[in-house]
Amino acid sequence: MEVINAAPIAYNSRVRNFHSDNVAPACEAIMAAVGAANSGMAASYGGDALTARLQSVAAQLFEKEVTVFPVATGTAANSLALSQLAPPYGAIYCYEAAHIVTDESGAPEFYSGGAKLIGFPAADGKIRPEQLTHAIAFAEDMGVHHVKPAAISLTQATEWGTVYSLSELSAITAVTKRHGLPVHMDGARFANALVHLKCSPAEATWKRGVDVLSLGATKNGALCAEAVVFFDPARAEDFGRRRKRAGHLWSKMRFLSAQLLAYLADGLWLENARQANAMAARMAQGLKSVAGARLLHPVDANELFVALPGACVTALEKQGFEFYRWPLYATETGVAIRLVTSYATQSADVDEFIAAAQRC
Amino acid sequence: MEVINAAPIAYNSRVRNFHSDNVAPACEAIMAAVGAANSGMAASYGGDALTARLQSVAAQLFEKEVTVFPVATGTAANSLALSQLAPPYGAIYCYEAAHIVTDESGAPEFYSGGAKLIGFPAADGKIRPEQLTHAIAFAEDMGVHHVKPAAISLTQATEWGTVYSLSELSAITAVTKRHGLPVHMDGARFANALVHLKCSPAEATWKRGVDVLSLGATKNGALCAEAVVFFDPARAEDFGRRRKRAGHLWSKMRFLSAQLLAYLADGLWLENARQANAMAARMAQGLKSVAGARLLHPVDANELFVALPGACVTALEKQGFEFYRWPLYATETGVAIRLVTSYATQSADVDEFIAAAQRC
Amino acid sequence: MEVINAAPIAYNSRVRNFHSDNVAPACEAIMAAVGAANSGMAASYGGDALTARLQSVAAQLFEKEVTVFPVATGTAANSLALSQLAPPYGAIYCYEAAHIVTDESGAPEFYSGGAKLIGFPAADGKIRPEQLTHAIAFAEDMGVHHVKPAAISLTQATEWGTVYSLSELSAITAVTKRHGLPVHMDGARFANALVHLKCSPAEATWKRGVDVLSLGATKNGALCAEAVVFFDPARAEDFGRRRKRAGHLWSKMRFLSAQLLAYLADGLWLENARQANAMAARMAQGLKSVAGARLLHPVDANELFVALPGACVTALEKQGFEFYRWPLYATETGVAIRLVTSYATQSADVDEFIAAAQRC
Amino acid sequence: MEVINAAPIAYNSRVRNFHSDNVAPACEAIMAAVGAANSGMAASYGGDALTARLQSVAAQLFEKEVTVFPVATGTAANSLALSQLAPPYGAIYCYEAAHIVTDESGAPEFYSGGAKLIGFPAADGKIRPEQLTHAIAFAEDMGVHHVKPAAISLTQATEWGTVYSLSELSAITAVTKRHGLPVHMDGARFANALVHLKCSPAEATWKRGVDVLSLGATKNGALCAEAVVFFDPARAEDFGRRRKRAGHLWSKMRFLSAQLLAYLADGLWLENARQANAMAARMAQGLKSVAGARLLHPVDANELFVALPGACVTALEKQGFEFYRWPLYATETGVAIRLVTSYATQSADVDEFIAAAQRC
Repeated sequence: MEVINAAPIAYNSRVRNFHSDNVAPACEAIMAAVGAANSGMAASYGGDALTARLQSVAAQLFEKEVTVFPVATGTAANSLALSQLAPPYGAIYCYEAAHIVTDESGAPEFYSGGAKLIGFPAADGKIRPEQLTHAIAFAEDMGVHHVKPAAISLTQATEWGTVYSLSELSAITAVTKRHGLPVHMDGARFANALVHLKCSPAEATWKRGVDVLSLGATKNGALCAEAVVFFDPARAEDFGRRRKRAGHLWSKMRFLSAQLLAYLADGLWLENARQANAMAARMAQGLKSVAGARLLHPVDANELFVALPGACVTALEKQGFEFYRWPLYATETGVAIRLVTSYATQSADVDEFIAAAQRC
Repeated sequence: MEVINAAPIAYNSRVRNFHSDNVAPACEAIMAAVGAANSGMAASYGGDALTARLQSVAAQLFEKEVTVFPVATGTAANSLALSQLAPPYGAIYCYEAAHIVTDESGAPEFYSGGAKLIGFPAADGKIRPEQLTHAIAFAEDMGVHHVKPAAISLTQATEWGTVYSLSELSAITAVTKRHGLPVHMDGARFANALVHLKCSPAEATWKRGVDVLSLGATKNGALCAEAVVFFDPARAEDFGRRRKRAGHLWSKMRFLSAQLLAYLADGLWLENARQANAMAARMAQGLKSVAGARLLHPVDANELFVALPGACVTALEKQGFEFYRWPLYATETGVAIRLVTSYATQSADVDEFIAAAQRC
Repeated sequence: MEVINAAPIAYNSRVRNFHSDNVAPACEAIMAAVGAANSGMAASYGGDALTARLQSVAAQLFEKEVTVFPVATGTAANSLALSQLAPPYGAIYCYEAAHIVTDESGAPEFYSGGAKLIGFPAADGKIRPEQLTHAIAFAEDMGVHHVKPAAISLTQATEWGTVYSLSELSAITAVTKRHGLPVHMDGARFANALVHLKCSPAEATWKRGVDVLSLGATKNGALCAEAVVFFDPARAEDFGRRRKRAGHLWSKMRFLSAQLLAYLADGLWLENARQANAMAARMAQGLKSVAGARLLHPVDANELFVALPGACVTALEKQGFEFYRWPLYATETGVAIRLVTSYATQSADVDEFIAAAQRC
Repeated sequence: MEVINAAPIAYNSRVRNFHSDNVAPACEAIMAAVGAANSGMAASYGGDALTARLQSVAAQLFEKEVTVFPVATGTAANSLALSQLAPPYGAIYCYEAAHIVTDESGAPEFYSGGAKLIGFPAADGKIRPEQLTHAIAFAEDMGVHHVKPAAISLTQATEWGTVYSLSELSAITAVTKRHGLPVHMDGARFANALVHLKCSPAEATWKRGVDVLSLGATKNGALCAEAVVFFDPARAEDFGRRRKRAGHLWSKMRFLSAQLLAYLADGLWLENARQANAMAARMAQGLKSVAGARLLHPVDANELFVALPGACVTALEKQGFEFYRWPLYATETGVAIRLVTSYATQSADVDEFIAAAQRC
């Protein structure tokens, strides 16, 4: 058979890339942990020592017995979690432009066997308790003709880079408790929210009434690692079967668990998130000096939505800065863009962007 | 927040582990490729250069334009592929104890929306053309009352470590062509089969009528990498959507593609498989000298199914040798076990096992 | 075994019942047709003569070769039709409060394997072309991350008793044609719309770009009969399999087909709908004379949504008039109710209601 | 609009039709009940008086509080019932050629979201306790890699016209109880089995460990009526939602309930089944006098599987007798056919067939 020569591919470090936090490489500590995990034989399918250790680390971190299921993607984490909470004939209440609604290609419907996502409008990405109350009342009035209230899903930090305060969370989960509905939190950027909230993981989750957390690591320095965290192990019954039949049970699970261990065990997750958030704050501060720039949302975490004059946006793109235009927000007075910072973003990267924007 | 100390975990190299080829670590070349991929920013969701390169490497390797979709697990590869071939009301014909039937927790049914796996008996794990002909005739006779013939799935190498010969493949695909049915090949151990067949990848697949291949790498030296290979790109329409909504589209895809590139580009996959197969052959040869040992299947690839006296099996287990007892094959005259070799198995590991077995 | 005595149950004719058109009994002509069908043996599963005849009657009626699949409920008709048009990863565009969204308990998601209904706001229940254009553009921009534009569904007459004009239909289907998307029409009250439009069935459907029609009969005089009508038989491929595996293929199909034949063959469907519409118009006219009454929507078909003073609504209920309060429309100035007329409604029934309302 | 003339269609009474019990018309008593139900307005979706009455009649009949859900087809009854018992990742154990496996086009997989039917071989259509024990042990050994034992389904009378004895039922449900698995009974011909068993409905079902019964009426004299009977109402939670979202909740439910009431209330179901069974017994007796005829199964209910010389089968077909050739049973010595009798079969019909067979 012919030998094919795979010449090495050079990556240019694109420090001007604000597309997303998932364009960054994995951080060194996590790469090292993966390398360290690659030693000798290990029991497959999660029977290894690292996966066992992850359970105890997570329990210590959340100050509670938890059950943790590592998976490789956020879509998998969210969809598996929701399928555990909602029957096929159930309603999952959420924000109308939540990631699970617009960015997962119908994965929650697929995994749940057809449950319906019922999205509420929310300018800042945060749903309100009264929206929930109203929707549940409608469903109860409709009986079998409508999908059954089954669960709610909150994104923390939200899709617009805002963060639910602890009291906002409590107000929502007061409603869900009244109706016996479980609460899922899409924490693809949970560490960024936590750093903003300045509270413990427990305070931000189960003490606020969250039942299941999709805990993201990939956007914050991992190669490919998310975890579904159940705060009540009883609720996780058969979840391992769901993960397996979705093809998300890794045979060499140690490589997933190793990432999560390195992420969680020594504060790396918060350290990375602090850097990302700080860079976003620096960017927000810098934009104040840019003529015609306007922040469209508060910058609580590591995403910025900014309206800029169209000519300025074009000029930035020409200079090699990378970001998404956000067409939903396009207005006559300007073009909206999204900027995302990550653990890998440096002050100089931000300052260079601001300088370029000022020049426009 | 309390800092949790994650002490390093020591793995003992268990050279006596014949549980499966997935207990082995990743091989050095693949680990190095993952490390090299972790350089700078890269477009997410497969927009990176490594993923693009993988397409062309695969095309060169298979001597044909192909479309390749990397995923992390074999169950994902198989189920996604089958869901592309079979409608929810379709029949997928296969071996009755195929991995997709007994070991994937219903994943093919989940992904396909309820298609039915119709399994044929086969002592050696290889289905026969006439079984297919008969089943299709029955389905056609039944009309809408029965599931519609939609696809077949062959495992190569099979679940019993045997390998379909090229002419056996042709005989089956002659039937499928007559009925216009696509052919899926579960190639979790495709490299091991290829080494046995001593032919090109093209000869072993599309030239024999295979339409879609689940190409495994994880059992043969990767961390977590499989690929769904479509030999007719037209058949892959919307497959990317299926992968996304199943949560199998990685944001940092480069880390999957890097593994597959290292695996395929310079013959590593065949080199690893040759070692695994050679160790299995050595084991088979050695077992001839063990009193009471009997091979239950020809050893074409890297799995051995062996009947041994019960006392001998127990003794081997006590000495720390690891393998599965295979209860389906248990007989009055002995206990059946499965031994799996991998790229990481060394001659000394095999010899030690044989010596221990001889001592029983 | 003990003999259980089933004493006859007396139904009181409730002429004050405006709950829905489905509280009416079946009309005499359809009952007679069912009785006539009960003669001798007949081939099962649609192999009977009446089912064959239904195909030709429908073809004549729609001036086109069509394929007709009788089913027993509107939810089945809609969900089966949509599952034929949209893949599991598809988007179905519709009105946000369409019957398929709010009143079918997730049936379209179930049947399609998880396709997403994307609902547009519309005060009068009629979606607008530009809403469609915008949503498709968004989906195309999102690529694999979003569900794929797959179909649209229009309700005719709408949930608010309005009717799309022919030009409104054309404006919408001009968009769908541009994007190659099929159009489903939920015609649970199609006859009522047709009578309003005063055009041929062909003009109201396929000549306007409709691909599949859920043609209702149950609300308009049948016991339990709806039909899925494909205007392009090629689009109906395997639809019979979908119907079967959903449990909607009757073994004694003649009893379904007989209803539809009686309904369609001699103009009964239009005659019944004319009566229902006329009674709704009479009610609308009468309400003008009721102080404080306000129609919330134009009355194009056989449903009225009326705001009345709360005390008046309560008084009407106490007098035994039956209708739904419509909480979504409740305002400070009054209570909204829905009144539905049917083929069985008589002028005296309407006049009695108006007289009672005037007395409030 | 053109008026289409629907000329009446004459059905020839085909007394030579032994195709199936579903080719018979509805019996007079049930037709009369449907007519009687068509009186005045009635609450829709099962809120009517007849549906309420059905619950109490069924409770009296089964000597137990039960929950009864009428549906129109047996496939719907079976699939809905199984979807209530088995999760999407579950295993449903049954006979390998059960109706749910071969004749429902994948409906159980569809309704359950992908549960797997695991079929056991059984010459007489009756599964054995040890098959169940073995399969459950295998599943438990496999853990998350295999589908989870979830339910069993028994067909009574079986697909081959045999009937499980009460002790055979008890032996099976002893196993299911040990493992906490619910038992479904496909009773498409339950009345025929009951007449054979000469016991009460309670003795044949819940007293033997049956949890859910698909109770058929269509094959035994109804137009279109089956019922899902839960012997523990707690197990029926949300079942009404499942029925609705499958499109099997009739708006004019009274027409379904009326059939079932007429069927069950005064012993009609047993009377009809006695006639069908008696005619099958008469046929079996008669066949003893036919040279070359051989019964392939005991005739416990109303189906006969008979091997006849090929020339004889052809001759019978030419004389207008209708039945299915059963190719699975074709042998070198003859052709297998299936004969089904129904409540509408008369002694003269049987005698005519026997006489014709004797003449061959």
